[in-house]
Amino acid sequence: MSPLNFTHILTQAVDELSESKSYTGLFHQHKDGEPLPSARVLCDIIDLARAILFPGYYGNSTINSHTINYHIGVNVETLFNLLNEQILAGLCFASDGECDSCTESKREEASKLAAKFISRLPHLRRVLATDVEAAYNGDPAAESFGEVICCYPAIKAISNYRIAHELLQLGVPLIPRIITEMAHSETGIDIHPAAKIGEYFTIDHGTGVVIGATSIIGNNVKIYQGVTLGAKSFPLDEEGKPIKGIARHPILEDNVIVYSNATILGRITIGKDATVGGNIWVTEDVPVGARIVQPKAKK
Amino acid sequence: MSPLNFTHILTQAVDELSESKSYTGLFHQHKDGEPLPSARVLCDIIDLARAILFPGYYGNSTINSHTINYHIGVNVETLFNLLNEQILAGLCFASDGECDSCTESKREEASKLAAKFISRLPHLRRVLATDVEAAYNGDPAAESFGEVICCYPAIKAISNYRIAHELLQLGVPLIPRIITEMAHSETGIDIHPAAKIGEYFTIDHGTGVVIGATSIIGNNVKIYQGVTLGAKSFPLDEEGKPIKGIARHPILEDNVIVYSNATILGRITIGKDATVGGNIWVTEDVPVGARIVQPKAKK
Amino acid sequence: MSPLNFTHILTQAVDELSESKSYTGLFHQHKDGEPLPSARVLCDIIDLARAILFPGYYGNSTINSHTINYHIGVNVETLFNLLNEQILAGLCFASDGECDSCTESKREEASKLAAKFISRLPHLRRVLATDVEAAYNGDPAAESFGEVICCYPAIKAISNYRIAHELLQLGVPLIPRIITEMAHSETGIDIHPAAKIGEYFTIDHGTGVVIGATSIIGNNVKIYQGVTLGAKSFPLDEEGKPIKGIARHPILEDNVIVYSNATILGRITIGKDATVGGNIWVTEDVPVGARIVQPKAKK
Amino acid sequence: MSPLNFTHILTQAVDELSESKSYTGLFHQHKDGEPLPSARVLCDIIDLARAILFPGYYGNSTINSHTINYHIGVNVETLFNLLNEQILAGLCFASDGECDSCTESKREEASKLAAKFISRLPHLRRVLATDVEAAYNGDPAAESFGEVICCYPAIKAISNYRIAHELLQLGVPLIPRIITEMAHSETGIDIHPAAKIGEYFTIDHGTGVVIGATSIIGNNVKIYQGVTLGAKSFPLDEEGKPIKGIARHPILEDNVIVYSNATILGRITIGKDATVGGNIWVTEDVPVGARIVQPKAKK
Amino acid sequence: MSPLNFTHILTQAVDELSESKSYTGLFHQHKDGEPLPSARVLCDIIDLARAILFPGYYGNSTINSHTINYHIGVNVETLFNLLNEQILAGLCFASDGECDSCTESKREEASKLAAKFISRLPHLRRVLATDVEAAYNGDPAAESFGEVICCYPAIKAISNYRIAHELLQLGVPLIPRIITEMAHSETGIDIHPAAKIGEYFTIDHGTGVVIGATSIIGNNVKIYQGVTLGAKSFPLDEEGKPIKGIARHPILEDNVIVYSNATILGRITIGKDATVGGNIWVTEDVPVGARIVQPKAKK
Amino acid sequence: MSPLNFTHILTQAVDELSESKSYTGLFHQHKDGEPLPSARVLCDIIDLARAILFPGYYGNSTINSHTINYHIGVNVETLFNLLNEQILAGLCFASDGECDSCTESKREEASKLAAKFISRLPHLRRVLATDVEAAYNGDPAAESFGEVICCYPAIKAISNYRIAHELLQLGVPLIPRIITEMAHSETGIDIHPAAKIGEYFTIDHGTGVVIGATSIIGNNVKIYQGVTLGAKSFPLDEEGKPIKGIARHPILEDNVIVYSNATILGRITIGKDATVGGNIWVTEDVPVGARIVQPKAKK
Repeated sequence: MSPLNFTHILTQAVDELSESKSYTGLFHQHKDGEPLPSARVLCDIIDLARAILFPGYYGNSTINSHTINYHIGVNVETLFNLLNEQILAGLCFASDGECDSCTESKREEASKLAAKFISRLPHLRRVLATDVEAAYNGDPAAESFGEVICCYPAIKAISNYRIAHELLQLGVPLIPRIITEMAHSETGIDIHPAAKIGEYFTIDHGTGVVIGATSIIGNNVKIYQGVTLGAKSFPLDEEGKPIKGIARHPILEDNVIVYSNATILGRITIGKDATVGGNIWVTEDVPVGARIVQPKAKK
Repeated sequence: MSPLNFTHILTQAVDELSESKSYTGLFHQHKDGEPLPSARVLCDIIDLARAILFPGYYGNSTINSHTINYHIGVNVETLFNLLNEQILAGLCFASDGECDSCTESKREEASKLAAKFISRLPHLRRVLATDVEAAYNGDPAAESFGEVICCYPAIKAISNYRIAHELLQLGVPLIPRIITEMAHSETGIDIHPAAKIGEYFTIDHGTGVVIGATSIIGNNVKIYQGVTLGAKSFPLDEEGKPIKGIARHPILEDNVIVYSNATILGRITIGKDATVGGNIWVTEDVPVGARIVQPKAKK
Repeated sequence: MSPLNFTHILTQAVDELSESKSYTGLFHQHKDGEPLPSARVLCDIIDLARAILFPGYYGNSTINSHTINYHIGVNVETLFNLLNEQILAGLCFASDGECDSCTESKREEASKLAAKFISRLPHLRRVLATDVEAAYNGDPAAESFGEVICCYPAIKAISNYRIAHELLQLGVPLIPRIITEMAHSETGIDIHPAAKIGEYFTIDHGTGVVIGATSIIGNNVKIYQGVTLGAKSFPLDEEGKPIKGIARHPILEDNVIVYSNATILGRITIGKDATVGGNIWVTEDVPVGARIVQPKAKK
Repeated sequence: MSPLNFTHILTQAVDELSESKSYTGLFHQHKDGEPLPSARVLCDIIDLARAILFPGYYGNSTINSHTINYHIGVNVETLFNLLNEQILAGLCFASDGECDSCTESKREEASKLAAKFISRLPHLRRVLATDVEAAYNGDPAAESFGEVICCYPAIKAISNYRIAHELLQLGVPLIPRIITEMAHSETGIDIHPAAKIGEYFTIDHGTGVVIGATSIIGNNVKIYQGVTLGAKSFPLDEEGKPIKGIARHPILEDNVIVYSNATILGRITIGKDATVGGNIWVTEDVPVGARIVQPKAKK
Repeated sequence: MSPLNFTHILTQAVDELSESKSYTGLFHQHKDGEPLPSARVLCDIIDLARAILFPGYYGNSTINSHTINYHIGVNVETLFNLLNEQILAGLCFASDGECDSCTESKREEASKLAAKFISRLPHLRRVLATDVEAAYNGDPAAESFGEVICCYPAIKAISNYRIAHELLQLGVPLIPRIITEMAHSETGIDIHPAAKIGEYFTIDHGTGVVIGATSIIGNNVKIYQGVTLGAKSFPLDEEGKPIKGIARHPILEDNVIVYSNATILGRITIGKDATVGGNIWVTEDVPVGARIVQPKAKK
Repeated sequence: MSPLNFTHILTQAVDELSESKSYTGLFHQHKDGEPLPSARVLCDIIDLARAILFPGYYGNSTINSHTINYHIGVNVETLFNLLNEQILAGLCFASDGECDSCTESKREEASKLAAKFISRLPHLRRVLATDVEAAYNGDPAAESFGEVICCYPAIKAISNYRIAHELLQLGVPLIPRIITEMAHSETGIDIHPAAKIGEYFTIDHGTGVVIGATSIIGNNVKIYQGVTLGAKSFPLDEEGKPIKGIARHPILEDNVIVYSNATILGRITIGKDATVGGNIWVTEDVPVGARIVQPKAKK
């Protein structure tokens, strides 16, 4: 093949790939002046949020009790600005095709939502402090709160979830899901931002954990790696497509422990103080205080 | 220890580590003028491919229907150049020790393979569109095609697999495996580039999924997190080493569903429309339309 | 809301988040002149270590047998300097609150520990060579040592573990755990740096593997994805908190194979040459040479 | 001094530097949602403009006649977007204090100005082609147009000037001056964006050249390093401050040559075809075709 | 030449270049644990200082009067830390060969000097405010203080000089000179940090200006591009080498103006209110209020 | 203007700018597989060369006499590789249009030239050592060789010139000129790579110095800022274009000093030990040992 042929192959591929038929449903048209949701900026947003919530552990800044006010101040302001822009991007993305452009009213709404989120940061820190304590108390290998905050993937995944959950409750589209998927990629823990999770929540090791969108988890719950809180099956509409928005994931009451690789499916309830053993498949309610395990293996 | 002692320790370690005996089999000698396979460049290649296949969702460019031709054009040309260089690096890597240098004929071959891959991009987009549709239809939590394309790890893993599979079929060494391992690291989904996978394929959540090299998967198959399509055992040669290239992974026919953490091992066939429940170990054929589940847990 | 209101919300959040009560236990105070543990620098440290241990495969340098001495030399010196700084950071972090500042004696100790680690690099390369060989021999899909070193997540996870284990044995705090968590995030394989692991160790695919802090693994052991070597339960002290430092994870003797998603819990012993099948939960000793599997699934 | 004292010194300095009295006139208040003029983005803008005007010489892209359309397309679109944002920043900067915020009408104006600038790019390329030709013809050391375009500081300085002059004529504030100062820093050639300069203009070597705001330069003029086209003195207003906007710099008619380090001051005219020798100070008109030189040095 | 020959040439060059004889006087030995003076860090230091002195104009931060305290706080703290490290590097560099290592006492001295510099920042801002005013008043083309601060090279050069001069007066070695050379490279204005310069100082255009180490400049002085305040000749010691530390540069009293490319040499005095015309060479005192110009050019 | 109109303006500009007529002479066509001359890579080349020539002063590496061999080794090898690539790019650039592609023979020639350059590095260091000594001895303000090497722009400009001159003598096209222009931009000193310059050469301050292509400078020469060694006029060919390659710049014999802003034009000779005063224009030979100065200024 001569260089000319290469050029021909390239330009032909470009032409095919630029035909509108070929990208139906796979193409996001950008409207002039609209910000774009950006994975890189959302990364910065999470880094800032972690630096604000756990000062000195994240953000790598040379911070002490005399200067913390300056650092928190700059980080909060920067977080507000970046979030403002990304929330606006999310609003525009969600209304794709419905309206003509990114209006002034959307800009205002984005600012309001960003400010509301900022005002929730002290609450978020209070709840996350309970998660850190739970992780420390639950793991004999943990040597300090500092080690837990710096190293434990559960803290990263739960922080992202709690941030995303706040944003979702404020009505921000798309962004919450991207934020939990970032933690999913980093930790292997997949928590849907719509799940409801109480205080003192901890996940040990965590790789492979899945917590579905309509799950409800009480206080003081502990989950091990590979645990799935999933949907058993879902009703279809007339067109054979799944009906969206139905409660289809489990409820875990206070103090429940679920061991590694257990799979709990459907809108069932695992009662208070119950323990679910590893590697089992649970599709029916588990009574309060019960302990279920796998049948013996054959030798 | 004085600074002099540190210097002594360092130079001694350097001498030991530079002795040829110490690095036998662990050292890749670089030949002058040869490009090197580069994880960073392969990352750029995947980013470019995603930007071409899903314009506006990836690549973060301010693209619209009037300018898409420019963007696709620059991206395709850049992809061709980077791929050309990396394929050449792969060819040189594979022939390590066999010939004297990176010859003109290898350069030509690399260009041809890169061009052939480019010409397959429209096909890749068509198949990936079916995967997006399958993910959207299969998940009640999915709110739009856009959310699926932006957030779902399955789309990332399957894109990388389909790209790597094309390159493998063209005969490109090493590079396909690096590309699927990049997705493995990003998503926890490990699909060997040699596996054969039909259209409308989807993986939910996905962490821990393993799809072995000789697996064959039909159309419209759905797999959940933690599922293994693995080898049961493999025959050894006279030296006690595994014989390479034997079909040893399962066949999943059209419309099969496999639930989370199921392990399917060996060259068995899961028949059309069959369902495999979660957390079970399957080593024998499953008939068409069958549904197998784990025995009840003991309370 | 007017811009003024946004400013009010921001400054109020800053004030709340800067109150010392609000960050008790979640704040790492920085002492003047102390280095900080840095995830980015630890990343560079791992990249350098990989470039030294597997020259030409990692580090992307244009290295050959005539110039290897220069490259190893620069990399070893840089590694020493970065490690020195991070070990010092770890020592300061661990003594948080106990002493006034980062003393000269801590600086000396950090240098000594860094030098000792450097002197262990040739040993580390020798052991890792056995792991590479085991991975190659154990996988029919592996085409060369090079492919194993470049692509296999197990090699990344085991390298990080072996580096972290050396540092932990030298008494370096915090840093070892961060290093194994980096591999956990990259590969989904979670090996505690305190575990003891013999030669010719390999992990296939690997996502979801957990190897607890007091695990002991012999030579020539092979583990598949999703396997947990965990603790069954742990004794609590008078305050109801787990007693730290008790042997609580399994012992795997030489030549043991554990298939995917098996969960082995507690200080039990899996005897020499034994095989543990996939998706099962093992809480009792397994005799030498035994083979245990899951009960049949129901159709 | 103890660490506490350092903290005290720092916080006191911060307090002093944050008092509004201390920064009067030196502080640019940022209004919410307004873009900021950014030296880095303006750098990117100049790089893009050079890549469009001299394709293949700047922009480092692997461009050929078949793909030039794609590259120009992406570069023009990106240039439009960045310029749009920076022009808006300039408009907001200029109206500092006058209005409440960055209104929708300013956004529209910025877009219009950016689009108008884009439509002038073909004209800019035509004029710059004459400058390249003049530089090549005027320097016996020049070996090709390519060398002139790649290496000659005059081309960089004149490009920036011509771009800045277009923007100034469109009414864009601040940005033009930053653009010519960027070239001043890069080349030592200081051309005010308001100067009027004809075609086939060239500057040899160029360091130290100053061309004032009201200078008028004809076609085919050549200037050497260190030449000043400056103001002699300027009338003051009642407050003793210079009156702005008065013509106060020289007029150089067609074909004038000015040798190195000559200083030409005031609204005088250097007539057509005249030559001004090096190191002299000219404050009076020079007739058409004249040649003026420095008096002999004393030995 | 074969690849082997290239290797031979390279290793031979390396050997020659590593012989200690070959680098006598050209080699800076690094002592373990000492920071190194770093051009990149000094760049960051200047950027931070500019951001503190001219908030909102430099530093590109989204700063307003409510948040300025946070930004100044973080910038001052960061500046202190970086400066601390660079001053220590300067002290170590200056004592090269004299003592064994970077002692604790040097660390303390560096911290003290950095803190003293920080406490001078409010003074620096007050003086620089007079320079900005002088530049604005002296140039009919200046449209606002903002334009002067953002665009005028004189402000950059004078800022760096005033910062460097403070550090020099505190006794910091090497660093001040690097800082003024950074401005020299950026603006073509070369001010020695040891020069003494009064308030309301301005330089127009500036390229080629040289202000020697023992120059003394009063208040309200204005200098144009290409002006040299240099040494005429300097007495040599017995070995024929210049005697260091003798006053050898001009004194410019208050309100002096020096036009472009004038050269003023030796320890002479240009009297109050005097004007020196362009392109002339002055080696004798100029009386108070005098005005000297170049002889007429010959036509 | 509606968004649609903007799109129209953009696409029209793209079309005009992509027409081949519009870019004749301003477009560098890239041939497939050819490297491109890259300003960024040439910057790295200069940084590497400086790090090799002045170890520890440039390159910022933590280098000492025990590890210098490693650092020089890696830097020399990297320099060879980058230079190889850029020389090839220069050769291809120079033969633009003459041959079909970047042939194997050009690759070989580039490697040979790069290797020859490497073998000249010890010589370059020896000569540069004389320049450093001359700068130190010639400036009463210089405090150490180290300060001269780190801070003096003359050393940067002369290093780049001596590197570029070697490359030019080896026959490398384009690259030498780019390298001296990089120093021109950094220091304001413009030395043509073809000039011939002896040992112990120094330039004080340097901004505005111009040394033309056919200049010849003896040993121990000192030049001040703003000095031009230029061409007086140049003979034209029949087409009125300057005849290239004629000796047209001055000869400065040993020990000559030229003070600031002097302009020396034409192929004249400034005799041994002569001194040329500042701000004068010299177009005739100056005898051995003579001293010429400017006529007195008028008061």
